[in-house]
Amino acid sequence: MFRVYIGLALTLAIGPLHAAPPTSAEILAASKPTDWRPLDAANSLLMQLPSGPVLIELAPTFAPRHVANIKTLARENYYDGLAVLRSQDNYVAQWGDPDAEDASKRKPMKSGVRSLPAEFSRPIAGLKITPLKDGDVYAPAVGHVGGFPVASSRKTGQAWLTHCYAMVGAGRDLAADSGSGAELYVVTGHAPRHLDLNVTLVGRVLQGIDRLSSLPRGTGSLGFYELAEERLPIASVRVVADLPTTQRPALEVLRTDTATWAAYVEARRSRKDEWFLEPTGHIELCNVPIPVRIAKP
Amino acid sequence: MFRVYIGLALTLAIGPLHAAPPTSAEILAASKPTDWRPLDAANSLLMQLPSGPVLIELAPTFAPRHVANIKTLARENYYDGLAVLRSQDNYVAQWGDPDAEDASKRKPMKSGVRSLPAEFSRPIAGLKITPLKDGDVYAPAVGHVGGFPVASSRKTGQAWLTHCYAMVGAGRDLAADSGSGAELYVVTGHAPRHLDLNVTLVGRVLQGIDRLSSLPRGTGSLGFYELAEERLPIASVRVVADLPTTQRPALEVLRTDTATWAAYVEARRSRKDEWFLEPTGHIELCNVPIPVRIAKP
Repeated sequence: MFRVYIGLALTLAIGPLHAAPPTSAEILAASKPTDWRPLDAANSLLMQLPSGPVLIELAPTFAPRHVANIKTLARENYYDGLAVLRSQDNYVAQWGDPDAEDASKRKPMKSGVRSLPAEFSRPIAGLKITPLKDGDVYAPAVGHVGGFPVASSRKTGQAWLTHCYAMVGAGRDLAADSGSGAELYVVTGHAPRHLDLNVTLVGRVLQGIDRLSSLPRGTGSLGFYELAEERLPIASVRVVADLPTTQRPALEVLRTDTATWAAYVEARRSRKDEWFLEPTGHIELCNVPIPVRIAKP
Repeated sequence: MFRVYIGLALTLAIGPLHAAPPTSAEILAASKPTDWRPLDAANSLLMQLPSGPVLIELAPTFAPRHVANIKTLARENYYDGLAVLRSQDNYVAQWGDPDAEDASKRKPMKSGVRSLPAEFSRPIAGLKITPLKDGDVYAPAVGHVGGFPVASSRKTGQAWLTHCYAMVGAGRDLAADSGSGAELYVVTGHAPRHLDLNVTLVGRVLQGIDRLSSLPRGTGSLGFYELAEERLPIASVRVVADLPTTQRPALEVLRTDTATWAAYVEARRSRKDEWFLEPTGHIELCNVPIPVRIAKP
């Protein structure tokens, strides 16, 4: 059964028989309740697809106006009945109004808006960034804030969310301020970090990413679906805090400002799992999975 | 129509109106026939899935023994009737014999073998590596050789293929020499570079990666399919050079040792496409798509 598994360990079953450094799985298993924070229900969305729910945690710390607009749109049921329009291999899946370009056909908004000033970055001041120490090809510094991958530059004094797998952004046209979160995309391939500082990232898929990443790829330009019937209908998008308690996903996210997080990252940097013959000794920002678990009742 | 597209350009349609530096698409459009090399048909595989073909170019320069064994297995029809066994989100899809662990049930081999000495790396000497200049989190140096992404270390004198998207490797058990290419995997998510130097990479999917990357994710441990009927049957795997001429994919790969390649990489480092507001100025190894095109008849 173990044959040809690659990359994950049997160590949860085997346990720390020797005085070897703990694996990341062991560190998580030994974590304290305070190492985890609850899902930010007031800033999370539950999107219902035909295959089931997708849970997105938004990042108001980085994109306050976009997050507010997205919540407004969710609360006025704007997204209900829209569709996943695009699936481009090794890149993104994208959803919104198929008729967004046609003012006579597009879905009207009530209080929500179709464009907002870009929120590509924000001041470092006020953020507690847990740094990653192995450097980055794209940014002077990288790390984590509140469960999100972040880059920063002392020179500009700015910090920004990064296009790691499962990060969600607000699609835009040529103008910087032409997005609003009415149309959203999620990274479903190798991190397209060249998009950093060019699009407003608004959050991260915490659960159900496979419902978007395993979609058939669109055969149109940029992976857009060519036929209306290829599109995946969105039944509804709700703010999690607005749902009845029993329908809220009871999730917790590992805090990224704790000793447990530091030990977890260190264990990922130099794998001690039995399968690994050559510990890497380094880790890249988008290769650090940010653990999520079901909260204990 | 242009609205909310992200990351690719309209420049092929717009053309270089100004004296702006060319985009990568413009550079490819202006390339010479000698900038491209033909598919290495003697070292390529065509795998037939229910959804269509997947084309894999092997890398005998880096894994000669594994490549030879894989071709032997293909020629003795070993892979025919096996299946895709695993699809783990943001990681890999894997195929082989579902009964590989059971000596009484597994498919017999003729001249092929079930294990081979690891080919995790090879000497730098003899390789012409085209370097990438922006550094790397995992390796002292990175670049390309013959259309494959490569890392290297002067200290060890070794070079190795890297786990970028669409790279194909030989699954193994705990022992370094427990793989042979009888079971193969392909990277379908963010580059798991921590696997570098831990598994023998054997090639790259040039066409049809979406047939593997968009598979439903397995619900078993490590993304293995739990039910036999979830597995995707492999009709056949053939060495391309063994196929009738009319059935061989007529592909060309952009040479990675030319001025055109250098200009292409430079254009990807600092996008001049109209959509990009903030040129990145850097590029990471696994973010350089290696262009493939249909050969002109």
